Amino acid sequence: MKIAFLGLGPMGAPMALRLLDAGHELCVWNRSQDKTAPLAARGARVAATPKATAEGAELVITSVANDSAVRAVTFGPNGLADGLGRGAIHVSTSTISVALARELDAAHRERGQAFVSATVLGRPPAAAAGKLYVMAAGQPTALATVKPVLERIGQRIFEVGEQPWQSNLVKLCANFMIFSTIEQFAEVFALSEKAGIAPATLFEVLSNSFCSAPVHLNYGKMILEGEFSPPGGAMQLGAKDNALILQAGEAFGAPLPMASLLRDRFTASVARGEGELDFCALSNRARDDAGLAPKR
Amino acid sequence: MKIAFLGLGPMGAPMALRLLDAGHELCVWNRSQDKTAPLAARGARVAATPKATAEGAELVITSVANDSAVRAVTFGPNGLADGLGRGAIHVSTSTISVALARELDAAHRERGQAFVSATVLGRPPAAAAGKLYVMAAGQPTALATVKPVLERIGQRIFEVGEQPWQSNLVKLCANFMIFSTIEQFAEVFALSEKAGIAPATLFEVLSNSFCSAPVHLNYGKMILEGEFSPPGGAMQLGAKDNALILQAGEAFGAPLPMASLLRDRFTASVARGEGELDFCALSNRARDDAGLAPKR
Amino acid sequence: MKIAFLGLGPMGAPMALRLLDAGHELCVWNRSQDKTAPLAARGARVAATPKATAEGAELVITSVANDSAVRAVTFGPNGLADGLGRGAIHVSTSTISVALARELDAAHRERGQAFVSATVLGRPPAAAAGKLYVMAAGQPTALATVKPVLERIGQRIFEVGEQPWQSNLVKLCANFMIFSTIEQFAEVFALSEKAGIAPATLFEVLSNSFCSAPVHLNYGKMILEGEFSPPGGAMQLGAKDNALILQAGEAFGAPLPMASLLRDRFTASVARGEGELDFCALSNRARDDAGLAPKR
Amino acid sequence: MKIAFLGLGPMGAPMALRLLDAGHELCVWNRSQDKTAPLAARGARVAATPKATAEGAELVITSVANDSAVRAVTFGPNGLADGLGRGAIHVSTSTISVALARELDAAHRERGQAFVSATVLGRPPAAAAGKLYVMAAGQPTALATVKPVLERIGQRIFEVGEQPWQSNLVKLCANFMIFSTIEQFAEVFALSEKAGIAPATLFEVLSNSFCSAPVHLNYGKMILEGEFSPPGGAMQLGAKDNALILQAGEAFGAPLPMASLLRDRFTASVARGEGELDFCALSNRARDDAGLAPKR
Repeated sequence: MKIAFLGLGPMGAPMALRLLDAGHELCVWNRSQDKTAPLAARGARVAATPKATAEGAELVITSVANDSAVRAVTFGPNGLADGLGRGAIHVSTSTISVALARELDAAHRERGQAFVSATVLGRPPAAAAGKLYVMAAGQPTALATVKPVLERIGQRIFEVGEQPWQSNLVKLCANFMIFSTIEQFAEVFALSEKAGIAPATLFEVLSNSFCSAPVHLNYGKMILEGEFSPPGGAMQLGAKDNALILQAGEAFGAPLPMASLLRDRFTASVARGEGELDFCALSNRARDDAGLAPKR
Repeated sequence: MKIAFLGLGPMGAPMALRLLDAGHELCVWNRSQDKTAPLAARGARVAATPKATAEGAELVITSVANDSAVRAVTFGPNGLADGLGRGAIHVSTSTISVALARELDAAHRERGQAFVSATVLGRPPAAAAGKLYVMAAGQPTALATVKPVLERIGQRIFEVGEQPWQSNLVKLCANFMIFSTIEQFAEVFALSEKAGIAPATLFEVLSNSFCSAPVHLNYGKMILEGEFSPPGGAMQLGAKDNALILQAGEAFGAPLPMASLLRDRFTASVARGEGELDFCALSNRARDDAGLAPKR
Repeated sequence: MKIAFLGLGPMGAPMALRLLDAGHELCVWNRSQDKTAPLAARGARVAATPKATAEGAELVITSVANDSAVRAVTFGPNGLADGLGRGAIHVSTSTISVALARELDAAHRERGQAFVSATVLGRPPAAAAGKLYVMAAGQPTALATVKPVLERIGQRIFEVGEQPWQSNLVKLCANFMIFSTIEQFAEVFALSEKAGIAPATLFEVLSNSFCSAPVHLNYGKMILEGEFSPPGGAMQLGAKDNALILQAGEAFGAPLPMASLLRDRFTASVARGEGELDFCALSNRARDDAGLAPKR
Repeated sequence: MKIAFLGLGPMGAPMALRLLDAGHELCVWNRSQDKTAPLAARGARVAATPKATAEGAELVITSVANDSAVRAVTFGPNGLADGLGRGAIHVSTSTISVALARELDAAHRERGQAFVSATVLGRPPAAAAGKLYVMAAGQPTALATVKPVLERIGQRIFEVGEQPWQSNLVKLCANFMIFSTIEQFAEVFALSEKAGIAPATLFEVLSNSFCSAPVHLNYGKMILEGEFSPPGGAMQLGAKDNALILQAGEAFGAPLPMASLLRDRFTASVARGEGELDFCALSNRARDDAGLAPKR
C-alpha cells in the first residue's frame, strides 16, 4: 500500500519502520529532516513537505505532538490536505482534542476523503514491537481498509465507534486512568512513608494482589524509583491531555472532580519548577502536602 | 493447635472452616449463635462468651465488623482478654483503626500475650478457597507462630512490619485503592455515556489493555452492571473505612485529597438514600453530576 | 470629549447615558441596532459599524460580552481598529481573558494608540447610578486622560497597574470571590436545612455579624430566595469567567482548588439542565449532594 | 444572680469580668489557678473544683477549650454535674460538637436542670468590650432567664433554636465561613502575586467595594501581613472545628467539599510544621502550590 507517514518522533519512527518492514511503500516527512535518515536507509522515500508526502498516497498517517501540530501538517501551507487525493484516508494517531477530531472529519469528508482516528496505548518499546493497543474509530469501510495496516503496529485493534472523535475521547479517558492512578499511589505512598512503612512494602502487597495491572506496575514503580528526568512522558504533555479531558467533560456535560484535582497538581508541578520532569513527578505534590521532600 | 475463633460472618465462617479442615482444634463463638451450627456440625466446640472461647486457647482469631465490635469482644464483659492465658496470641483480621490496633497491642503485651494484626484482601469466595491475601504484622516470634495457620486461609502472606497497626494501615490503603478506582471508573463511564460511547466499550478497551487488574475487573464490572443490592460490600462499611484512612492521614500528617473527595461521595450517597446499597453505588454520584439517572 | 461607545447591553447602555448626560459627544453602535434608539433620542450619533463609530473619536469604549465579541468589534471586518486614529485610546470594560488584554494592548501600541482596561464591579442599577467600582489599568498618561470619564460611571476608580491585563486579572479575582461565596453559602445552607435549622436563621446571624459585605448580602439573599430565572447573571457567563481565572491560574502558575470545585459545579449545573438560570443556582449542587430538591 | 464561671482563658476571663462588673455574684474556677487572681481581686469567690464552684449557683457558665474539656468539667470527678442543683442552668459557650451538645442537654434534663448553648463570635477584645455576637439555643424559659446575663457579654443575642445543639451547629458554620474565606483570599493572593500584582492592591479593591465585611477585613489583613505567630486562633483549634463541621455534615447528610479541602489544608499545615501558627497560615498552602515561600 502506498502510505505517507508524517511525524517520526519516538512513537512515529518505530511505527513507520514496522510498516516499511511489512512491505508497504512509504513516503515519509518529519519537521526536522534528520529523523528521516533511518527510514530512508531502509527504503522509504523522503518528501520535503506534508503536501508532497501525501501526493499519490492511499493512506496518510500522522503521528505528531498535539492539536496545533496536527492542524499545521494538515491544513497549514503545504499541508497534507492540499496533496491528498479523493478517496484517500487520513489516519491520525495523535492524542488530540475531540473538537479537532470533529473538524478533521468534516474537512476530509468535504474533500471526498475519509478520516480515521487511531489513537494508541503504549510507549516507544511497545511501538517497536508492534505491541501497541490501537483504538480505532471512523466509517466502517475506511476502518476495514486501514485495519490490516494498524495490525502491523498494534497487538490488538479496538473498534470504538463510527465517529473518529470517539477514539480520541477513549484515549483521553485512558490517559486519565494513568494520571489518576499516579495520584492514588502518590497519596498512599506519602501516607505510608509518614507512618514508617516503606512504600515499596505497600507496593509489593498491592501489586502482587489485586492492583497488578500494567498501569499499576509501570507507574507505581516509576513513582517508587523517583527518577523523573529525562521524562518518558513529559509533564507539559500530561497537563495538556488532562486539560483536553476536562474540556471534553465540559462539552459533553460530565464533571470530573479527579481530573480537576489533577489539573491543580499539574499546575502546581509546573509552578514548583518540575515542568521538565516526567509526569510521574505529579506524585511529588502529595509529598509536598505531607511535608516530605520531592523526588527528582 | 487450639484455636479460638470469634466472629462467623461471611468472612469468618469460611476461614474457621478451613482451619477446622486443616485439623486444628477449634472453639468458636458468634454474637448470634445460629451461625455456629455449621461449624459445630464439623466438630468445633461452641462457647457461650468470648471469654469462655478464649480460655485455654493458644491462639484467638477475631473476625468481627469494626472497632467497636473488636473492642467489645476483647475488652467487654466476658471479653476474650479475661479468658486468654499468658503466652497466647490474639490475631485480629478485622479492618480497624490504627489507633485501636495500637491499643490492643499494648493491652495484650501488658497481659504477657502477643497481638498480631492479619488483615485480609478478598471476598467470601476467596476466603472459602483459601485464596485471600493476608497482610500480617507483629513481633517476629508471634508472626512465626501464626504463619502456618494463616497459610491455610491465604494464598500469600505478606509480612508488612513488626508493629501490628502497620497491617491495618496497609489494609486501609488497599481499601482506598478500591474506592478511588470506583471513582475513576465512575467519572470516565459518565463522560463516555454522555458522549454516546457505551461505557462497556470503554471498559473493554481499558480492561483488555493496561487496566486489567482484579481491582479493575471486579469493580469495573459491578459498576457497569449497576446491581448494587444486596450489597457485597456495604456502603456504610465503606464509609467507615474511608473515614479511618482519613483519620490515619491526619494522625501521620498526610493529606489525602482523593479520600476527601470520596468522603463527600459517601456522605452524598447516604444522604441520597443509597446507604443500603453496595459501595459501588458511589459511582452514581458522577452520574448525578452529569445529569444521568442513578443505577440501583 | 468625542467618545465612541460600542455595546449597549444592560451595563453599556446606562454607562453611555451617563457620559451623554455629562456633556460628552457620543457616537454609539450596537450589534442589534434597536438598542441605540434611547441614546439617539438623547442626542447620540448612531453609526453603522464599529469602524465608523471609532472614526474621529478621542476615546472608544467597548462594553461587549466576551473575548470573541471584543475581538470581533476590534479586529473584525469594519472593526474599530480600522477606524480609530493615532493617539486615540481604547477603553475596554469587558471581562475578558488576560491573554486577549495583552493582545489588544500590543495591537493598539503598534497603531500608535493606547489601550486601557477598565473593568467594573456592580450590576446595571449601579451602572445607572454611577455607583460602579472601576478597576483601571494602563499607561499612566492614558489613565490620566480617561479617569475623568470613568469618574462619571464609577463611585471609585482603583488604579491597579500599568499593564492593562492587570485590570482583567483583578476582575476575574473579584468574580471568583462571588462564585466561591455562593458555594460557601450553598454548603452551610444545605447543612443547616438538613439539620432542621432554617437557612434564613443562619443567614440572619451571619449577615448581621461578621459576614455583612455586599457580596454576602446580595448573593446570600438570592440563594435563600431561590429565584434563579430570569437570570441576573447568566450561568454560562459565570462558567466562562470561572474558566478564565483557571486559565490565568495555569498561565501564572497558581493552582486554584476552589475554582476547580466551582468548575465542576458549573459543568454539573449545565449538565443538569440549569444552564439558563442565574449562576446563583450553583447553590443547587450542594442541595443535590445533600439529597434536597433544587430550587428554581 | 449567683453565677459559677468555669474557664478563664482569653475569652472566659473578660466575659467573667463583665458579669462581675454588672453586679453578679461570681464563683470562679480555672484549671491553672493563677488565672483566677484578677477575678478574685475584683471580688469573685474562687473554688477548688468545678463541683464546688457549681454548688448553690443559679447559673453555671463554661468557657473551656473543646469537647474533652467540657466533658471533664461537667462529668469528670468533681465535675459541675455533681454540684449543680435542680432547676439550675448550664450555659456552655464553647465550640463543641453537636453530639456532645445533645448529650449535655439530655444529662442536664435528667437531673432536672436546663442546658443552654450560647456560642459566641468575636475575639478577646470584643469579649472585653461586651461586643460579642451570641448565638443562643435552648428551651424558651431557660433562654429567657439567661438572656439578660448574655446581654452583658454580647452586643446582640441571636436566638437560633430550641435545641441547644443548634447553637453549636450555627457556630461551626460561622467558623467554616472564616476558614473558607481564608482559602478564598489565599488563592487570589497567590495568583495575583504570581502575576505581579501586589496582593495588597487586590485587597484594597475588594475590601473597599463588595468584600468589606469584618470576615474580609480581619482575615484578609492578617493574611497580607503574614504574621502568624503567636497565634490569635490556633491552627490545631481550627483543625478541630473544621473536623466538627465535617462530622456534623456526615451526621445530617450534607457533604461539604470546601470543608474537605480545608481539612486537607489543615492536615498539610500541621505536616509542614505550621501547627503552632495562627490558622491564617492555612493561606501558606496556596503559596506552596504556587511555588511561593510560606510566610511566618
